[in-house]
Amino acid sequence: MRGCPFFCSLVLDMNLLILTDKDTVEHDRYRLTDHRAEHVRAVLRAKKGDFVEVGLLNGPIGRATIEQLNDDEVVLRCGQLEESPAIRPTVDLICALPRPQTLKKVLITAAMMGVRQVHFIRANRVEKSYFQSPLITPEKQMPFLLEGLSQGKLTQLPKVEIHDRFRPFFEDYLPSIEESCPEGENPIKLLADPETTSTLKDHYISGDARLVLAVGPEGGWVPFEVDLMVRQGFRRFTLGRWTLRVENAVTAALSQVELIRIS
Amino acid sequence: MRGCPFFCSLVLDMNLLILTDKDTVEHDRYRLTDHRAEHVRAVLRAKKGDFVEVGLLNGPIGRATIEQLNDDEVVLRCGQLEESPAIRPTVDLICALPRPQTLKKVLITAAMMGVRQVHFIRANRVEKSYFQSPLITPEKQMPFLLEGLSQGKLTQLPKVEIHDRFRPFFEDYLPSIEESCPEGENPIKLLADPETTSTLKDHYISGDARLVLAVGPEGGWVPFEVDLMVRQGFRRFTLGRWTLRVENAVTAALSQVELIRIS
Repeated sequence: MRGCPFFCSLVLDMNLLILTDKDTVEHDRYRLTDHRAEHVRAVLRAKKGDFVEVGLLNGPIGRATIEQLNDDEVVLRCGQLEESPAIRPTVDLICALPRPQTLKKVLITAAMMGVRQVHFIRANRVEKSYFQSPLITPEKQMPFLLEGLSQGKLTQLPKVEIHDRFRPFFEDYLPSIEESCPEGENPIKLLADPETTSTLKDHYISGDARLVLAVGPEGGWVPFEVDLMVRQGFRRFTLGRWTLRVENAVTAALSQVELIRIS
Repeated sequence: MRGCPFFCSLVLDMNLLILTDKDTVEHDRYRLTDHRAEHVRAVLRAKKGDFVEVGLLNGPIGRATIEQLNDDEVVLRCGQLEESPAIRPTVDLICALPRPQTLKKVLITAAMMGVRQVHFIRANRVEKSYFQSPLITPEKQMPFLLEGLSQGKLTQLPKVEIHDRFRPFFEDYLPSIEESCPEGENPIKLLADPETTSTLKDHYISGDARLVLAVGPEGGWVPFEVDLMVRQGFRRFTLGRWTLRVENAVTAALSQVELIRIS
């Protein structure tokens, strides 16, 4: 982990080595030279011939054999892989664009907890400077999404979009997506709002319906925003009797959905 | 916030200024000279005569008037404060001692989400070095607990204990605490375990019973540990179909409990 400060947390939490097309040497062989190779050497302390758990990005999971292992590289050969994602991604997250440190955590959590798509949006209490962060670009987001998948043992990469206008997102963009949904598959749209006493269970009882979950900025939505979302069919629910940070609110909302799904 | 790297995240998320005995000047006046004073000046941009939201540690919450405000100090006068904690702390958390960076997050989350007591314990997959961290001392934990209270708008400080032996904790210490419980107030003991299909709702339907929630280390409990806890009356439940990080697992467990409480 020395010389790899950026990835030190990744190395510690890697439950699944996520392999991408870029790692391919030939059809079932993958060559790793980055923090994942370091993970195999230093954390797993694996030897040539050992098995490691791998997942192909947006594909199956399974075990791979270590064919080569030295200071420069780890070469893996994947045997028969299995259709993975235990969780069919059915939850879309709308999140007021948080500050960069929080954005990283939300990306990790969204991938770890099987979110299908994340829309980061502008809101009244979002600082304009957040839209200048390098983290709003896909290439800067990728390591955090991969970290989340790796931790969560999932392979389906969430789609991430940035929307720098509030009203057009809800009035034009979101309805246009919904129109393209197959009939009967319109999502249940939910808005986390500490100002209501309704809970998730008042709006969503069971089943794996598509859900859209909106989580506000630090300091919350302003009334205009809540009113507009409610007019667009969002139903308000409270996560509980606390005031949560954005990253905790995202985890809380996804966990409460999951409790209903699995019960 | 310049010159205050340690507290920069606190300054941004301070929903309630937590006041302690050490801040008292006279009975209803409090003098702040640290990051909280900086928060009043730089984030709230408050002026003399303005009100700010305050909470007395382990006491009531309310509004205070700014009597003095300059580069060195902020002096507050508290008027009538109200009995606070909206949440009566009824959940105790048992958590395998995580690495220091995660420990900080768990302390913040526990305070933010109204946990009554946290027991950090040894487990097979806990690295021994974690018990050498300065963070196992109360004075190093305090800033993170205060940060959590401040974020969560709560004032009741969770009690934190460190237990460096696994078996005596469950076989001797925990039973001794339970014996001192008033009759009929024995807690429901729950163990987050991805290896079961039972959910929280199989063990806990409603009400605000006392709960003890155990969350394992990265990599999970070993079978011996699960067996021992089950023998001691813990019931296994799964948080969902993911593999979560410790800090997300703590938030997830507390959120699922809260959904049942408020529904």
